[in-house]
This record gives sequence, structure tokens and C-alpha cells, in this order.
Amino acid sequence: MDLYPSRVSDKPSIMERKDPVVHRNNSMRGPLDEEQLSFYEKNGYLFFERFFSGEEVQVLRDELRRIWETNKHSDAKEIIREPESREIRSVFAVHRDYELFRQLSRNQRLLDIVQQILGSEVYIHQSRINYKQGFSGKEFYWHSDFETWHVEDGMPAMRALSCSISLEDNYHFNGPLMVIPGSHQYFISCVGETPEDHYEQSLRRQQYGVPDHDSLTWLVEKHGISTSTGPAGSVTLFDCNLMHGSNGNITPLPRSNVFFVYNSVENRLVQPFSGQKPRPEHIATRNFG
Amino acid sequence: MDLYPSRVSDKPSIMERKDPVVHRNNSMRGPLDEEQLSFYEKNGYLFFERFFSGEEVQVLRDELRRIWETNKHSDAKEIIREPESREIRSVFAVHRDYELFRQLSRNQRLLDIVQQILGSEVYIHQSRINYKQGFSGKEFYWHSDFETWHVEDGMPAMRALSCSISLEDNYHFNGPLMVIPGSHQYFISCVGETPEDHYEQSLRRQQYGVPDHDSLTWLVEKHGISTSTGPAGSVTLFDCNLMHGSNGNITPLPRSNVFFVYNSVENRLVQPFSGQKPRPEHIATRNFG
Repeated sequence: MDLYPSRVSDKPSIMERKDPVVHRNNSMRGPLDEEQLSFYEKNGYLFFERFFSGEEVQVLRDELRRIWETNKHSDAKEIIREPESREIRSVFAVHRDYELFRQLSRNQRLLDIVQQILGSEVYIHQSRINYKQGFSGKEFYWHSDFETWHVEDGMPAMRALSCSISLEDNYHFNGPLMVIPGSHQYFISCVGETPEDHYEQSLRRQQYGVPDHDSLTWLVEKHGISTSTGPAGSVTLFDCNLMHGSNGNITPLPRSNVFFVYNSVENRLVQPFSGQKPRPEHIATRNFG
Repeated sequence: MDLYPSRVSDKPSIMERKDPVVHRNNSMRGPLDEEQLSFYEKNGYLFFERFFSGEEVQVLRDELRRIWETNKHSDAKEIIREPESREIRSVFAVHRDYELFRQLSRNQRLLDIVQQILGSEVYIHQSRINYKQGFSGKEFYWHSDFETWHVEDGMPAMRALSCSISLEDNYHFNGPLMVIPGSHQYFISCVGETPEDHYEQSLRRQQYGVPDHDSLTWLVEKHGISTSTGPAGSVTLFDCNLMHGSNGNITPLPRSNVFFVYNSVENRLVQPFSGQKPRPEHIATRNFG
């Protein structure tokens, strides 16, 4: 049964979330206190300033540079380029292909927190490094990740979260992550159908699964907007259904981050709810463990 | 003699400013104290929170809406539209064509401050209303206004300033004005020549008089970036040579502002330093008073 139908109607609609946000489970105790859990429950995100040290960040940044250099002319499917240039925008499946990021995805301090929120063992549903260049970094329009993962990947319920590790200092002015706190409590059903193999374009520029203006205005009037700013090494955890996006960046200060999506092992993918064929393994993990 | 050559070389260069920033003149005393004058001198801008009241702003906003409505299908040269749509982006010469904005441009509290900084009587070199829509508002790339006014309009020296009156609340996340404090002390000479009648395109999307990446990086490393945020009715005054720009805006919150450029009567326009014909009167006033 499809609890969250989307891209099936020509009218957008807003429905209430049907899953818990924090999956409390006494056998999955963890480092977050009640205040942090309540904040996450209410707002849909948590921010940890300097979760990783300057030295740890430098190692990751060096590895990022190496990966960028190596893949400059690669036509591997894991490499996504900017819509209007050959610049690399994202590299997918880094937890699978690069030892350093494999280790990072299994960082125990991080896992303890993630498993406490999701109330079970977890696995990596998707991973990538994003690079937003200075001067002409493009915006990421508003979206709920879950909408896409549900429709295109067959993720049944809202029991996943994203972890964004910033590799650069994030300021208000260089296109930081913006979230609508509390928006994870609503599912915005988007209009339009999804074309086959749509993902090859959508990773470069989103055209389907785009929330409508009225719903976004309603959410922002109700809940406002928060931006995730702070020094490199900071971590933002956010619910899979939190509405988020980021503005472009004309400043000389580039942004890059590592992005891990953790899904509960009790929320394994089924057939995509679009009825279409699943997206490939480097975008949505089906085989693990 | 051209004190500030630009668009004449194929290499960018940085030179020091040759004009005072505050033109101290005992016969032009005004309301700013020494601390404010020093701040302006050093940083190139001043911010006045709630310079105009909520009621005053509402009247201006109503008039803006009326002007937008009236000009929806107008092909008047004063109306500038978005590069990728028919949406109105700016309306020029509002101090000339609309009584309310004529009065606003002569607001005595404002004029006293402007004349104190420029040390002389002033006139309006250019005026406009800018409207940056929500969801898809486009960025304005970095530029020094003076570079354009000098090359394309024949403004001889740096003795002018811009006054931006915000008609909406400006947040960090809806594409507010960004400035590089202190950048007004340097003139960035841009590369390339200016085609004839270039302005018709440049008001929609800048292609000439664009500072290079290295110079911008140098300025930002040296001076950082400040953003002008605050409630509607706030006023930002900034030097004609201050490097500024703004990011795009995917939030539902639109931005609009009234923009007056005051030039000293002792700095009247001469022939454009590009050697080309001057831009029209609604963009650069030659006949006044």
C-alpha cells in the first residue's frame, strides 16, 4: 500500500506524516539527551558544530581533491556534472568506492546517534560528495528527499535520515543548506508523472518531484526558514522528509560536503511506487550486508 | 584625463582610489556624527534600520504594486524584464515619472545625510525600483556601479552614492544585498571592450564591466563580506565604487527596493570614457536643475 502517493495527480496536496520522527527503542540507547531528541522531533534536524576536528576535515578535503582530479575526464556514472558546464557537481557511492569515506560512513559516534533516532540498525541508502563552486554555484531547489526515494526508489516509510558533513566553512552568503523546520510533519504530494530514466537529468537539475509554490509558501509562513551555518567539520542531521534547498553562490567561497543517507534495516526498499524500474545501485542501495 | 581606465586591456588590474570617500565640507554639515562618517569612510556603506516607518513603507509598496500592474504589458524603455521571462525586474526613472517617488528622492532627512557625505548639492543620477521575485529570483553578480557609470556614462570621479530603501523584510536567505566592506578603496579595472548599445542587454544580465575572479577573491580575503538584512523601511547608503552583488532567491519571500543614485553637482557627467555614445536619459541623467 502506498502511504504517500505523489506524482499521480494534477493537483498538489498536503497530508500529515504517518510515521514517527524519532523511533524510540530501549535497546537502541545513544548519546542524545531528551532535549536533543525533542528538538529533532519538532524541527526535523540537529546541528553539531565542529563534530569533526580541523585535522580530520583536512584529510577529507585532500581526499576530495584527489577524487576530483582523478575523475576530471571520467564518464563513470557516479560522476554528476553541472547542467551548464563540465564541472563536477557530485560524486556518488563514495562510501562504497573510497576507503576513507567507507570508514567515515561507519564512524561510531555518528552511528550511535543515527541508530538512536531511527531505533534500529541502519545501512547506507545513498552517499555522495557535493561540490558547489564559488562565483557561479547553482541553487538546489526545495525538495523532500523522501518524496523521491519513495516514488523512484521504493522506500516505504519515513525512517531514514541524511547526514551532511561540511568540508568548508558555511556562511549565510555562500549558499548554505536551508531547511523549513517542522516541514517533515507534512508530505507534499507533487504533481506530474515521472518519465523513465528521469534520474539521469534530475541529479543535474530537478524537474519532477518539485513541490508547488502554494505549499512552500504555506510551510514557510507556518515554520520559517533556518540556515545551517558554521565552521568546516560541522554536521547537520535531518529527517528524510524535511523540506530543504539552497540558494546559488556568487561569492568566491566554494562549498563542499559529504552526504550520507542512513536508512533503517526495517525500512528496506521495495518496488518503486511510480511502478517504474528502480534507479541503479550507486544512487539507491538495494544489496547490502 | 581618465583617472580610472577600464575595459581597455585584456588583463584585469587593481588600482587605488584617487578620490576622497567622505567629502568633508564645513558648509555642508549634517546629521551624521564622526563615528558614522568614519565607518562610512572605512567600510563604504552605512545601514539605517527602520529609516522609514511601517506606514510609509506600505504606501510605497502600494504604489509599487500599481506601477507593476500598469506596466504589465508596457514596452516602455524604462521597464526591464527578467532574462528568461516577461516578469518585470526593474522600472527606471521613477523619481521623474511618479510623484510619490519624486518626493521620496527629495526626502529632507535623506538629503541631509547624502549632502553631508558628498560635501555638496546633489542630483539624481539614476533611480529605479527593483523587484526580485520569490522561488526563482536571479542573482546580481558582483560589480562596482562606478565602473559602469564611468565607462558608459562619463561620470568623472567617485563622488556619488547609492541609496537602497528596502520595501520588504530582508533576511540572510532571500538574496539580500552583499557588499565587500572596504572594496571602495580599490578600482578593479575590467577586461574587454563594451559593444555599442550594450546597456539594453546589460540591465538584464551583465556581461561587460564584470570583475575577474582573482580580484574578487583578493578583495574578499582581505575584507570579507557583509550582508544588509533588516526590516522593511531600512536604508543602506553605499559608495558608488563599493563592490556589491546578491545571490538568487529560492525562498517564497520576494524582495523589492527603491534605488536612488545621488551624484555631486560638482561631478557632472562628461562624455563616456568608452568613447561611445552616452546611455539614454532614463538610465543616466544629463539634464537637471
